[in-house]
Amino acid sequence: MTNNHLVIMAGGVGSRFWPMSTQDRPKQFIDILGCGRTLIQMTYDRFKGIVPDENIWVVTSEKYGEMVKEQLPMVPAENVLLEPCRRNTAPCIAYVSWRIKAKDPHANMVVSPADHVVLDINEFQRVIRASLEFTEQSDAILTLGMKPNRPETGYGYIQADLSTASARNREVYRVDSFREKPDVATAKRYIQQNNYYWNAGIFIWSVSTIVNAFRVYQPAISDPFEDLLPVYGTEKEQEAINKVYADVQSISVDYAILEKAEEIFVHPAGFGWSDLGTWGSLHERSRRDLYNNALIGENIQTYETNNCIIHCTEEKRVVVQGLDGYIVAEQDDTLLICKLEEEQRIRTFSE
Amino acid sequence: MTNNHLVIMAGGVGSRFWPMSTQDRPKQFIDILGCGRTLIQMTYDRFKGIVPDENIWVVTSEKYGEMVKEQLPMVPAENVLLEPCRRNTAPCIAYVSWRIKAKDPHANMVVSPADHVVLDINEFQRVIRASLEFTEQSDAILTLGMKPNRPETGYGYIQADLSTASARNREVYRVDSFREKPDVATAKRYIQQNNYYWNAGIFIWSVSTIVNAFRVYQPAISDPFEDLLPVYGTEKEQEAINKVYADVQSISVDYAILEKAEEIFVHPAGFGWSDLGTWGSLHERSRRDLYNNALIGENIQTYETNNCIIHCTEEKRVVVQGLDGYIVAEQDDTLLICKLEEEQRIRTFSE
Repeated sequence: MTNNHLVIMAGGVGSRFWPMSTQDRPKQFIDILGCGRTLIQMTYDRFKGIVPDENIWVVTSEKYGEMVKEQLPMVPAENVLLEPCRRNTAPCIAYVSWRIKAKDPHANMVVSPADHVVLDINEFQRVIRASLEFTEQSDAILTLGMKPNRPETGYGYIQADLSTASARNREVYRVDSFREKPDVATAKRYIQQNNYYWNAGIFIWSVSTIVNAFRVYQPAISDPFEDLLPVYGTEKEQEAINKVYADVQSISVDYAILEKAEEIFVHPAGFGWSDLGTWGSLHERSRRDLYNNALIGENIQTYETNNCIIHCTEEKRVVVQGLDGYIVAEQDDTLLICKLEEEQRIRTFSE
Repeated sequence: MTNNHLVIMAGGVGSRFWPMSTQDRPKQFIDILGCGRTLIQMTYDRFKGIVPDENIWVVTSEKYGEMVKEQLPMVPAENVLLEPCRRNTAPCIAYVSWRIKAKDPHANMVVSPADHVVLDINEFQRVIRASLEFTEQSDAILTLGMKPNRPETGYGYIQADLSTASARNREVYRVDSFREKPDVATAKRYIQQNNYYWNAGIFIWSVSTIVNAFRVYQPAISDPFEDLLPVYGTEKEQEAINKVYADVQSISVDYAILEKAEEIFVHPAGFGWSDLGTWGSLHERSRRDLYNNALIGENIQTYETNNCIIHCTEEKRVVVQGLDGYIVAEQDDTLLICKLEEEQRIRTFSE
């Protein structure tokens, strides 16, 4: 029996992909690439053979609990943890970590967002296996650093100290610093310096390491979850969580732990990762036709149409003539037509 | 009691307005202007006060019989005549004329397409009343000639002999000739000559006049409908019609009668008429916003969008950014986005 656990964080609301992604069905629950699997299902698929189903945990909003159980029926229902309100990643990770600790004090964990994509699954699995091996025998907090291919301003960066590869894994380095989303000039400098990686929000650690880190750096967050040790896995768990959760500080795990802790490592990796944070990145990750159109839907015809992303439900028949560089997205009772270069305004449109 | 009758020809399939207009629900049965009434309902409305409900007749395909009865419940069910197959306007008019004759030999009739629009209802009613008065007391075949405001190549033209106004109505003239859809140069010449009018397909005549004209000029068409005189209005009518209809020649009333008969007159008129034969004409006839967009739907938002026609079902939320000169049409399971200037290709797209 393995002590490997996977935590899928699935509480996001994905408002940038409106109208496909809505509060009622955010991006992670959508087959956004049109491949027959939703993003959370693809996330699950990536860990096949590494983490057994009974060790998979999903933390999500209470609103999405049923959707998780429908889309991942193999995950035990009691492993789907429901947040009564959104409190960023630190409380989410604290909750699930204590919950796992209550069941398996020797657990070794990967934490992953539910709504990212990875192209090279083999390389992803190799890196994850090596990372779990690395944290199994140490108190290390390990992050994955995506090798950047452009001066992206939409991601945070991890600065690595490449002079000190770990003796136990020559691909792992100490982290010098975490950097917030940079401006273009700064991003270009990062790329040139060659020791900056995108922070993908994928973390690997043993449960005792992360629980101790919370105790040391965030006692106000760790206390309520420590107090609940007797009720985890019982009928009282949800009610008890509902009582304390709103009072926990809303803060990211990056701020709460990673930027404060000492033993932080990064495993640089390149496995075709994207957080699918923009329509542009979705366009890039999707299969495209000869005219650079990403057509996601069963029945889409285009004429004189280039560089578009057209996304609609399976039943919909769509005919598009004469568009260049547009998003056409249709979902339920909503239709969006918008220039790709104006996609940052979609959040406003959707309000 | 009046002898005025109205025949609404409602058998068209309106394929140019796909996807709103489909074989299952053609244009005349759609609220295409977004005003709360379908085109056939607006056609009915235009004759209020001129023709009583019991004298209104609709000829349509058997497929659309129920739709007619739903949309015009005040028209007696037995006045909805069903064609078992499409045979152009001459057989349609012959059928309904004999049917009316069987009930009211002194009937005076207006024949009107179901899917046109008229802006100035008062002027329309004045012209129709004068026209019915004109044909009541004569054997004249009267057509309405729309005063043209542009060298349109999509309509047939009526050449009038303006030297000989009728003594009984100084607005009515003899027809010199009917002309088919012209090329641009010819259309321009027509406009300059000032005695050419668009043929709107609206005819006024007494039932004895049109029945006699069929007997004289189209005995092969008139014979089967004459033979059915004993069954009109009985249970056997539909079956009898179904037996003979397919064998009747498919030909327009223009070819079959108007171009052959002697006593043909035209009443030039200007009441803001359009056959709504193109998206362009629909755009022109619809209420437009400051940016020359015709927005037909309850919940349409536009940004940097000009000269577009956006037509969707009431429930649909639509956001359009950055389009100029496009048709966006959404109906049931189909979405069309197409440049207005390419609208003639829509028929191809829909196949």
